[in-house]
Amino acid sequence: MRKLSVIGIGAGDPDQVTVQAIKAMNLVDVFFVIGKGAEKQELVDVRTGILDSHVDGEYRIVEVADPPRDRTPDDYKGVVDDWHDRRAEVLEKHFAAVPDDEIGAILVWGDPSLYDSTLRIVERVLARGNLSFAYTVVPGITSVQALAARHRIVLNAIGEPVHITTGRKLRDEPTGNAVVMLDADCSFTAVAGDDIHIWWGAYLGMADEVLIDGNLREVEDDIVRTRATLRDRKGWIMDTYLLRQQM
Amino acid sequence: MRKLSVIGIGAGDPDQVTVQAIKAMNLVDVFFVIGKGAEKQELVDVRTGILDSHVDGEYRIVEVADPPRDRTPDDYKGVVDDWHDRRAEVLEKHFAAVPDDEIGAILVWGDPSLYDSTLRIVERVLARGNLSFAYTVVPGITSVQALAARHRIVLNAIGEPVHITTGRKLRDEPTGNAVVMLDADCSFTAVAGDDIHIWWGAYLGMADEVLIDGNLREVEDDIVRTRATLRDRKGWIMDTYLLRQQM
Ligand SMILES: C[S@@+](CC[C@H](N)C(=O)[O-])C[C@H]1O[C@@H](n2cnc3c(N)ncnc32)[C@H](O)[C@@H]1O
Ligand SMILES: C[S@@+](CC[C@H](N)C(=O)[O-])C[C@H]1O[C@@H](n2cnc3c(N)ncnc32)[C@H](O)[C@@H]1O
Repeated sequence: MRKLSVIGIGAGDPDQVTVQAIKAMNLVDVFFVIGKGAEKQELVDVRTGILDSHVDGEYRIVEVADPPRDRTPDDYKGVVDDWHDRRAEVLEKHFAAVPDDEIGAILVWGDPSLYDSTLRIVERVLARGNLSFAYTVVPGITSVQALAARHRIVLNAIGEPVHITTGRKLRDEPTGNAVVMLDADCSFTAVAGDDIHIWWGAYLGMADEVLIDGNLREVEDDIVRTRATLRDRKGWIMDTYLLRQQM
Repeated sequence: MRKLSVIGIGAGDPDQVTVQAIKAMNLVDVFFVIGKGAEKQELVDVRTGILDSHVDGEYRIVEVADPPRDRTPDDYKGVVDDWHDRRAEVLEKHFAAVPDDEIGAILVWGDPSLYDSTLRIVERVLARGNLSFAYTVVPGITSVQALAARHRIVLNAIGEPVHITTGRKLRDEPTGNAVVMLDADCSFTAVAGDDIHIWWGAYLGMADEVLIDGNLREVEDDIVRTRATLRDRKGWIMDTYLLRQQM
């Protein structure tokens, strides 16, 4: 039976990999790298750095080219769905070419359970029914936890829920209590209120990490400007933040 | 300047500790263990196991006894508040007794950012103003991520938020889309609907781990029974689950 591991590697700091991930990586014969063309070099470097420091012995790397994706779709879910299907097809082809006593793996940024499509793609490969394999998932530290650790904050107010959402959703349903990911548009500026605190972090765990926090109304312009400057300088940015209504 | 590290150690599987946590633990002179009396022996064993396997050299362990706490308060937040104050007082006393060139640490179950009082207590010690120290936080794998990994699920539906809440809150505001922690009362039985899936896990990452999943209406009785049996057998239980409305 073929085996596949889906392994979370943390969200930027190579030391945030777990012992379990290291043990799992050391059993792997072939790492599938999905969509490498679109990836930022620094993200590739984090992954390569982790493999170089922690894996002894031989392994192969197989690049699984990404099918093109419509970035501004009308039918968001439909397009994602179709794109997952085509990714599954490509992954299946590569996995089928591997000897069936070997162990394959996919390394995932952060944790595979949070805004990541790898598990959905793997499930589709299984659902297609052409290839059978066992697979396991190894959790990783998320960018949300990296954010909380660097700001030394607790995500929940005492006894209260934690709401993790996207920039898109925050615009649709503004709230002063949320962790926000995948926000290309500084959607925090769309949240009304004078008593909201924001803890913001970009490139968490990486050499260029930047942290800003304060009353949302007092620091929002600073974050908007800083974000634009950083993105221009580097060509890309990844950022996450927590909003909390102060009592 | 005194130094303190607050280090997440994962939620049961000792291999879910990170390289960053191991490096931080190896710098520590004294580990403060808060409220050990109330702790389950197996949780203590996980922590001791991590220290034994990963820390070379000498360290001391100082037990910080827990002030008593009203478990069924009328004024929940008031009582928690007061209890944090008293814990801060006790921690301050112990930390002040340590030579000021030493590094102290507190090991936290799971991640310090999720339903854990350690950071609030440390902030109170600082706010009291009697002792100054630098402190850092090292993230850890949460029980939520352990749950997701073992069931091989993504916490969010595509583009949708993730809502993490407590059993108490779930009863007050029932929803079919939530991750639930701190639930002593099987509050999933209070959620109405025939099209909700539940992924449940107890003692995640530990020898006695149990997983159940299925349509909520079909498996709820089984989970209620299993949970009661396990808790009776062992004397305690820790469980977490994800509910998701199926489309
Ligand atoms: C597709 S999601 C993947 C999340 C990932 N699975 C995790 O566990 O963190 C990408 C989003 O994660 C956040 N993110 C990931 N890495 C980050 C980092 N190092 N610093 C700040 N934000 C990060 C950003 O909000 C980004 O838009
Ligand atoms: C006080 S909270 C601490 C959470 C912890 N900081 C974390 O990151 O997972 C305790 C709750 O976490 C969940 N929990 C912690 N460890 C668990 C485990 N090994 N298996 C199942 N649930 C667990 C249970 O819901 C429990 O009621």
